[in-house]
Amino acid sequence: MNHSFLSSLKHMFKLDPNRPITENQIEQLCHTETGAIIVGGTLGVTYEDSQALLKQIRMHGKIAIQEISNLQAIVPGFDYYFIPLVVNAQDPKWILNVHHEALKRYGEWVNWNQVFVEGYIILNEDSSVAKLTKSKVPTELEDVLAYARIVDQMLRLPILYVEYSGKYGNPDWLKAIQQIVEYSQIFYGGGIHSYEKAVEMSQYAHTIIVGNLIYEDFPTALKTVPVKGVSYTQIEE
Amino acid sequence: MNHSFLSSLKHMFKLDPNRPITENQIEQLCHTETGAIIVGGTLGVTYEDSQALLKQIRMHGKIAIQEISNLQAIVPGFDYYFIPLVVNAQDPKWILNVHHEALKRYGEWVNWNQVFVEGYIILNEDSSVAKLTKSKVPTELEDVLAYARIVDQMLRLPILYVEYSGKYGNPDWLKAIQQIVEYSQIFYGGGIHSYEKAVEMSQYAHTIIVGNLIYEDFPTALKTVPVKGVSYTQIEE
Repeated sequence: MNHSFLSSLKHMFKLDPNRPITENQIEQLCHTETGAIIVGGTLGVTYEDSQALLKQIRMHGKIAIQEISNLQAIVPGFDYYFIPLVVNAQDPKWILNVHHEALKRYGEWVNWNQVFVEGYIILNEDSSVAKLTKSKVPTELEDVLAYARIVDQMLRLPILYVEYSGKYGNPDWLKAIQQIVEYSQIFYGGGIHSYEKAVEMSQYAHTIIVGNLIYEDFPTALKTVPVKGVSYTQIEE
Repeated sequence: MNHSFLSSLKHMFKLDPNRPITENQIEQLCHTETGAIIVGGTLGVTYEDSQALLKQIRMHGKIAIQEISNLQAIVPGFDYYFIPLVVNAQDPKWILNVHHEALKRYGEWVNWNQVFVEGYIILNEDSSVAKLTKSKVPTELEDVLAYARIVDQMLRLPILYVEYSGKYGNPDWLKAIQQIVEYSQIFYGGGIHSYEKAVEMSQYAHTIIVGNLIYEDFPTALKTVPVKGVSYTQIEE
């Protein structure tokens, strides 16, 4: 696995194939300094919609990553594939059964150099992903840290994805996670509705992911990206 | 993680703290060329019984490994700890919830250099462990191989434990597993009731584990260990 690629990522946009976006908007996202564009969502993700997004991202020369949420929508040709593993899911289907089904069908053909497993901790109980996976959403920091240790120390997954999905998270919890994580790259997603929030969470996460804001306030979404040669931290100082 | 330790293991005995064994028998096991002695079982494992076994193994200078099956029975002082992760379990408690509970309680104190995660595939549906974890036991080779890929390629766990628990497995399946596994050390356990069976499975597994036979036919159990300087393969040729 290409860990140096991962560590170069400070910011990513996530496009949901099930939500409307114009070609012009995709072009604008691709012309920012964001590290890559993720294509993926929880509900209603199809092959055709995912492929359409890939084609447009390709056209503008940006790195394109598919986050796999259902088997039927896996599109060949992405630069990388992220495979979510929800460590606080309680429905066995969404813990390892989907992976089993995927590897039964495609296991022989996977190029593992293109694949990164994301250890997801779902932290917003009202989100679609929490409901779908029947996630047991922690209410205490010590529970969150134990999940982080499963991802980072026990399984040594390349990515620990702290997912607040639509809700802005607790920066103190992120800070506590950062302090114990030794191996995994920390991704943060959820409620990044301004540049300041991106700056705040980037103190504790290696990579900030902006999704909903693209569909809710496009101009502000564009502004969450750090400017070339200037990291969030430098701006903040 | 000390992978060179793992790769040195051709054979191990597994002692169940819940089953009777004499001090003299433990001494005899320790004086064989077995690589290490695992202490662990599925039901009725207590701290006291596990500690008693550790003391006796220590007395004879053998490497002692605890395979953790319940939190109350974790005994400090073992050389290594194996943490099972049953990839075909269907009860979320036995997939990752027990690990979460363990890391919530002990996460801060774990020395990860002593710990190896075992990706278990349970292949005997009549075994206690299959019933406890509600394992979905594969009946087709392609399902077994998909689980093997989860352990080896997706999660890159140090150990892939092919567990027939009490029943002798299908050597053709083991051979097929060996052919696709690239990273994990393959452990085989189940129905090794003779030296010949140990030889047969050692063609396809890195490490053979003998458990039940210790309690059922002690003299034959002793004879499953390869002799010093002579690997199974050499003997077979």
